Amino acid sequence: MPEIDIVENIMDANDQIAARVRQQLDAAGVLGLNLMASPGAGKTSVLTATVNALKDELRLAALDGDVHPVDVEKIARTGIPVELINTGGDCHLDANKLIHALPTLDLSQVDLLLVENVGNLICPAAFALGTHFNVVIASIAEGDDKPYKYPAMYRGADVLLLNKIDMLQYQEFDLDYFRHGVEVLNPGLTFFPLSARTGEGLPAWLDWVRARVAERRAASEA
Amino acid sequence: MPEIDIVENIMDANDQIAARVRQQLDAAGVLGLNLMASPGAGKTSVLTATVNALKDELRLAALDGDVHPVDVEKIARTGIPVELINTGGDCHLDANKLIHALPTLDLSQVDLLLVENVGNLICPAAFALGTHFNVVIASIAEGDDKPYKYPAMYRGADVLLLNKIDMLQYQEFDLDYFRHGVEVLNPGLTFFPLSARTGEGLPAWLDWVRARVAERRAASEA
Repeated sequence: MPEIDIVENIMDANDQIAARVRQQLDAAGVLGLNLMASPGAGKTSVLTATVNALKDELRLAALDGDVHPVDVEKIARTGIPVELINTGGDCHLDANKLIHALPTLDLSQVDLLLVENVGNLICPAAFALGTHFNVVIASIAEGDDKPYKYPAMYRGADVLLLNKIDMLQYQEFDLDYFRHGVEVLNPGLTFFPLSARTGEGLPAWLDWVRARVAERRAASEA
Repeated sequence: MPEIDIVENIMDANDQIAARVRQQLDAAGVLGLNLMASPGAGKTSVLTATVNALKDELRLAALDGDVHPVDVEKIARTGIPVELINTGGDCHLDANKLIHALPTLDLSQVDLLLVENVGNLICPAAFALGTHFNVVIASIAEGDDKPYKYPAMYRGADVLLLNKIDMLQYQEFDLDYFRHGVEVLNPGLTFFPLSARTGEGLPAWLDWVRARVAERRAASEA
């Protein structure tokens, strides 16, 4: 089965490069988060809200996988270093794209690296980047059935943000049905409902980020 | 460059199978529409609203590319024949999956076949199915910047539906910015703003469908 061999080789190669990404982040004491979501769920909004809340206490940087710099421009307005990883239309980031982008940032001046993956609930789930945690961002606007239809993404999440909770009053969204779908795939998954727009629910997520950054710093100093 | 050869062979093979799908549809006088969108843009809602409006005047059938039958169950409630194309987690339908699903339907009893692709704005754009028209469904909820970030999907559209226009009052969405992005990629693209939920804007889209079904029937009788 040559097709399967090729796929296995690609995934092995990706995992090996991801391990090198992780080494570089760990050596510099940088926490790396891989933000994944559907198009329009609010990756950039969550990222910029997180940056604006934390930029006075932590040293932040971002990488954005995209074909167009529209999100990079939004992130740049926060004042932190940000670079575009031009995906050329690919449906996901991979460790190779990330390792080539890392030298564009001075990691010695960074505590937290936020990587915005391509807007897609399928392909990014298959490619480890070498970052420390997979952050999946769902949104009220995309509907309560997404865990059932995109199981690999939810299974691979380390933390789940449910964005746009300010839209709950305008859209039908069965929170119990959504949470049940998540629980079956990923029992006990850390979960933060929030609104990047209004700031509701953001503090709990920010505390989670602060705690992970502190752990990473302690590990790199040990 | 063996990688490029493999990709070219896959695309050639897909196009050949797509031509066979087209032959089968044409021989049966069936119009085939390929519905593509982001997760949560409302493919199933648009599909069921279209079915409910047309099922008394046209013979309809549907195929749904998914890993979970949640959408198939929604479509089945309209009373039309519908089958799941289980994608096993793949990020798109292709012509091979479609040609294997066609025998599950009695095409001699169908005027209009609605194919719901996988929720993804990237991968489905690359794979012709053999259907007659690509219908891209955008939504107010996913934001006005999507044409800029998913150009292949918008470039390959034959008709564009902008769903959830009833949400315009609750979300920031610059319709001129959206339309400019579309116009650059696909000048003169047929465009219907609508709400599958409220029915607003639906009649113009239904008239477009009726006209295409009539053309297809005339062509197969000629």
